[in-house]
Amino acid sequence: MTKKINEIPYKIYLEESEMPKAWYNVRSDMKTKPAPLLNPGTHEPMKPEELSAVFCDELIAQELDNDTPYIPIPEEILNFYKMYRPSPLVRAYCLEEKLDTPAKIYYKFEGNNTSGSHKLNSAIAQAYYAKKQGLKGVTTETGAGQWGTALSMACAYLGLDCKVFMVKVSYEQKPFRREVMRTYGASVTPSPSMETAIGRKILADHPGTTGSLGCAISEAVEVATSTEGYRYVLGSVLNQVLLHQSVIGLETKAALDKYGIKADMIIGCAGGGSNLGGLISPFMGEKLRGEADYRIIAVEPRSCPSFTRGRFAYDFCDTGMVCPLAKMYTLGSNFIPAPNHAGGLRYHGMSPVLSQLYADGLMEAVAVPQTEVFEAAELFARVEGILPAPESSHAIKVAIDEALKCKETGEEKTIVFGLTGTGYFDMVAYEKFHDGKMENYIPTDEELEESFRLLPKMD
Amino acid sequence: MTKKINEIPYKIYLEESEMPKAWYNVRSDMKTKPAPLLNPGTHEPMKPEELSAVFCDELIAQELDNDTPYIPIPEEILNFYKMYRPSPLVRAYCLEEKLDTPAKIYYKFEGNNTSGSHKLNSAIAQAYYAKKQGLKGVTTETGAGQWGTALSMACAYLGLDCKVFMVKVSYEQKPFRREVMRTYGASVTPSPSMETAIGRKILADHPGTTGSLGCAISEAVEVATSTEGYRYVLGSVLNQVLLHQSVIGLETKAALDKYGIKADMIIGCAGGGSNLGGLISPFMGEKLRGEADYRIIAVEPRSCPSFTRGRFAYDFCDTGMVCPLAKMYTLGSNFIPAPNHAGGLRYHGMSPVLSQLYADGLMEAVAVPQTEVFEAAELFARVEGILPAPESSHAIKVAIDEALKCKETGEEKTIVFGLTGTGYFDMVAYEKFHDGKMENYIPTDEELEESFRLLPKMD
Repeated sequence: MTKKINEIPYKIYLEESEMPKAWYNVRSDMKTKPAPLLNPGTHEPMKPEELSAVFCDELIAQELDNDTPYIPIPEEILNFYKMYRPSPLVRAYCLEEKLDTPAKIYYKFEGNNTSGSHKLNSAIAQAYYAKKQGLKGVTTETGAGQWGTALSMACAYLGLDCKVFMVKVSYEQKPFRREVMRTYGASVTPSPSMETAIGRKILADHPGTTGSLGCAISEAVEVATSTEGYRYVLGSVLNQVLLHQSVIGLETKAALDKYGIKADMIIGCAGGGSNLGGLISPFMGEKLRGEADYRIIAVEPRSCPSFTRGRFAYDFCDTGMVCPLAKMYTLGSNFIPAPNHAGGLRYHGMSPVLSQLYADGLMEAVAVPQTEVFEAAELFARVEGILPAPESSHAIKVAIDEALKCKETGEEKTIVFGLTGTGYFDMVAYEKFHDGKMENYIPTDEELEESFRLLPKMD
Repeated sequence: MTKKINEIPYKIYLEESEMPKAWYNVRSDMKTKPAPLLNPGTHEPMKPEELSAVFCDELIAQELDNDTPYIPIPEEILNFYKMYRPSPLVRAYCLEEKLDTPAKIYYKFEGNNTSGSHKLNSAIAQAYYAKKQGLKGVTTETGAGQWGTALSMACAYLGLDCKVFMVKVSYEQKPFRREVMRTYGASVTPSPSMETAIGRKILADHPGTTGSLGCAISEAVEVATSTEGYRYVLGSVLNQVLLHQSVIGLETKAALDKYGIKADMIIGCAGGGSNLGGLISPFMGEKLRGEADYRIIAVEPRSCPSFTRGRFAYDFCDTGMVCPLAKMYTLGSNFIPAPNHAGGLRYHGMSPVLSQLYADGLMEAVAVPQTEVFEAAELFARVEGILPAPESSHAIKVAIDEALKCKETGEEKTIVFGLTGTGYFDMVAYEKFHDGKMENYIPTDEELEESFRLLPKMD
């Protein structure tokens, strides 16, 4: 290690003056734009006024804007970003040494804030626009709990109410997550719940269900649209979220450029796609404009394989089928994944932007089994010191695989991956792994066919 | 906030090239040196050969060295430090705005690593010297669990065995702490345990005890001295630990100097004294040499008030009375504090170095009640975004009090405090606070007199 250690700093921190001042909208460079959201009744593209019962006005504008390349970050958000950004780009010297690989591995670490993940980047933006519109509060869903925590923090900072529906399996596995949200003044309800019509229906149809992000979204939307002064906010999937998360990729690219480093591949975990979409944005932009080429790899769990086994089709974003239709890689809105421990990757669909880029052959995807993910997580924790979230560990797993391929071929490739968060609230999962009680669930073809049967019929 | 925000960066990160290359030994500048450790049988100063059954040789040399001002940090430790250091010095703009104070508040944040605290600074040093001596493993105690986690990380990195005795009340309040240590390959036993003669005796004498750091130390020392190839390591109190922790103060001072900032007061929480001793070292050095003056304030819990209500006397470092005697502010080695939620501040004694400095009038101390600490913690979390550990929140409480005094007087003082760690594993405590079930235990004079009666009789 000592031979390489002074080549590049362990951790590259940009100066505050070097932080991005605008988000980058990758849609502006896409030749094939992501398909528009459709009204679930008419199958016509959603108009801003139809979306305004659910979302804040300025966020709708961002959602529908496929053309503007750069959208300035408001000063209040820039100031909030300075509380925990820039995040470090870390050279994984110790991991490289452990793997004895000629590859150069970097990771952008987004876990250095109390929400424990990258989710805060969009939470503060969405809360800011809600506040600016004069709203009282927002509702949302959370899976692993990172998005809910992030939104609670942002709302506490701005003085907004925050109501969170938390997927029941995560609520039970992570009792302390609830307490963190409560510290930030949020109310947290396990989903499905008896508080909403949709929750009651899901509980009646699927007694004993452990919940899913799709259910929780339906409940949060129902409460938002039926409560005065409230709107719904979402932590992933949407175009606006990828826009806000572009700050990850912009910082990463600025840090690499500062040291003259050229990435060969960019790797990120993908649930709804917010982290991956944000991380790859500026790199994908260069690729779309023909200025550079990169391998871009999405990593998903085998138990919820939207890219690798899903259909590219219009589908509901939620189980209750009240949200607009989105064209995306999907396992079907009725698909309830096994209760694996990467709660943030248990969504049935995938960002329409990423789905289009994948359909156009601009990125790859790979699905990995849970126990191998935790093996990678533990190895990483021991050599790099950071205890990774199960979600983030999907990217670690594939980064290690790629570094080992370099060892075989002798290639000195530069691998960049997104380390989206920390695993402090995932110790139940680590315990199962240590005790040899972790399972690798893989849905059968029959299960998926059954689920695809409920895809909406399009004209 | 926006008016002040560009004065100084939110977070001052030193460059890796600006990181300290040597630890600073504050004892070298003390006119009255800390009193030596004494053999509990003979009451003669401990000789290195007497200590070598318990401690590593190089650490003994550091422990006894009252003269060398700077001790070079070995390159392997410097490289490990680069994994998580330099830690940021943060300007608390949001807290200042919330308090509407003219004071300028800075905090040195040591929680940005997986152990969640400053403890890693000494853990890696102690593990390094143990490895260098060719040992198989080390034993230790842990209260809040931060030291145990830090040592587990350091041992995993270097390939050493690690056996941790964890104070029972913390073990029960923080089940996931155990799992983090296990991820790093450590074995964790709740203390007092049936595994040691001393543990069995304490359990017989005090059935139902929730344990104390003093008990856990006795057990860890017993195992270390009775197992081939093992030594004992301690996370606080000792001179060597304060030496390693000087890296906190050295970085803080370098960051302040870089921006031409002069601190008026330095505030830190004090349990055994490792964080406070490390933070203040270079500032105290200037004070001792007559080059500058600072107010230096130790903050302790009212439930365990070593400085403010203890005796400055020779006492045992452990409940089992097997360790050397140290001259320190102590509540008596038999004192078992109430099960409050700042497990890291539940030690009956105090660093001999800090004790001497306090006795010499070079620093102040204040004891604060638990509920006020959690009020400060929640306020801080909401405005500064970081969820603080209960221990660290003692310093926050007094920093806020001092900033509010500045508001009254209109003084623009510069306050620097140590934010030693994060509270992710302390959500049981936050829950009690939210539910109004938190108590403010204060020992009676009678209890303390009873405890002082067991102080060893000196000639």
